[in-house]
Amino acid sequence: MAHTPVDLGAKLAQVHQHWSPKVVARLNDYEVKVVKVEGEFVWHNHPDTDELFLVLAGELTIQLRDGEVRLGPGQLYVVPRGVEHCPRADHEVQAVLLEPAGVVNTGEAGGPLTAEYDDSLL
Amino acid sequence: MAHTPVDLGAKLAQVHQHWSPKVVARLNDYEVKVVKVEGEFVWHNHPDTDELFLVLAGELTIQLRDGEVRLGPGQLYVVPRGVEHCPRADHEVQAVLLEPAGVVNTGEAGGPLTAEYDDSLL
Repeated sequence: MAHTPVDLGAKLAQVHQHWSPKVVARLNDYEVKVVKVEGEFVWHNHPDTDELFLVLAGELTIQLRDGEVRLGPGQLYVVPRGVEHCPRADHEVQAVLLEPAGVVNTGEAGGPLTAEYDDSLL
Repeated sequence: MAHTPVDLGAKLAQVHQHWSPKVVARLNDYEVKVVKVEGEFVWHNHPDTDELFLVLAGELTIQLRDGEVRLGPGQLYVVPRGVEHCPRADHEVQAVLLEPAGVVNTGEAGGPLTAEYDDSLL
């Protein structure tokens, strides 16, 4: 029996909206999501969990209150729980997010960029 | 303040032993590890946790009792908890592992390929 891998590039090819993470795999009570982003997000934090960003294509800047981190392809960063951050991408970025199931993209901030939960690519 | 990303390629360049995962990031009580593998591992399972494999370079075959899954760069697979598996790589593979802190590479099987816990690249 040939089991099927999750091809991150193929999943990302099915993403047509920015700032709208799609669940592509589950690991215990965690979720792996793919996302395309461009422009500036909203300042927010996740009071109860760390959040991992892994960039696959493009350059992502994660603005923090005391500076920023710039991620290129093959680079990751874990934003600690409770730390305010605001991702920004001057050009489109393809990335992977990893966090516990149920985490909302805008954290405690909410607002119009809050994405619906989407596991349709799972 | 410029925060530092984790560059997976740079971390892997510091790995000189096969089948010896190195912790490069923590996310809550989970760990991200990089590993280089070549040859065949040992059949084992992790009774208490799923285990995620993401291939960055090379082709990894994860043998399962009812078949196998082949992973190339940018492809991932989650081995469910308790499922026996045996990774195999005909040529060197560079990969990322994701699992809860404290998981031992050989699971319940133990044996000579059991790696020491190593967070020296963190």
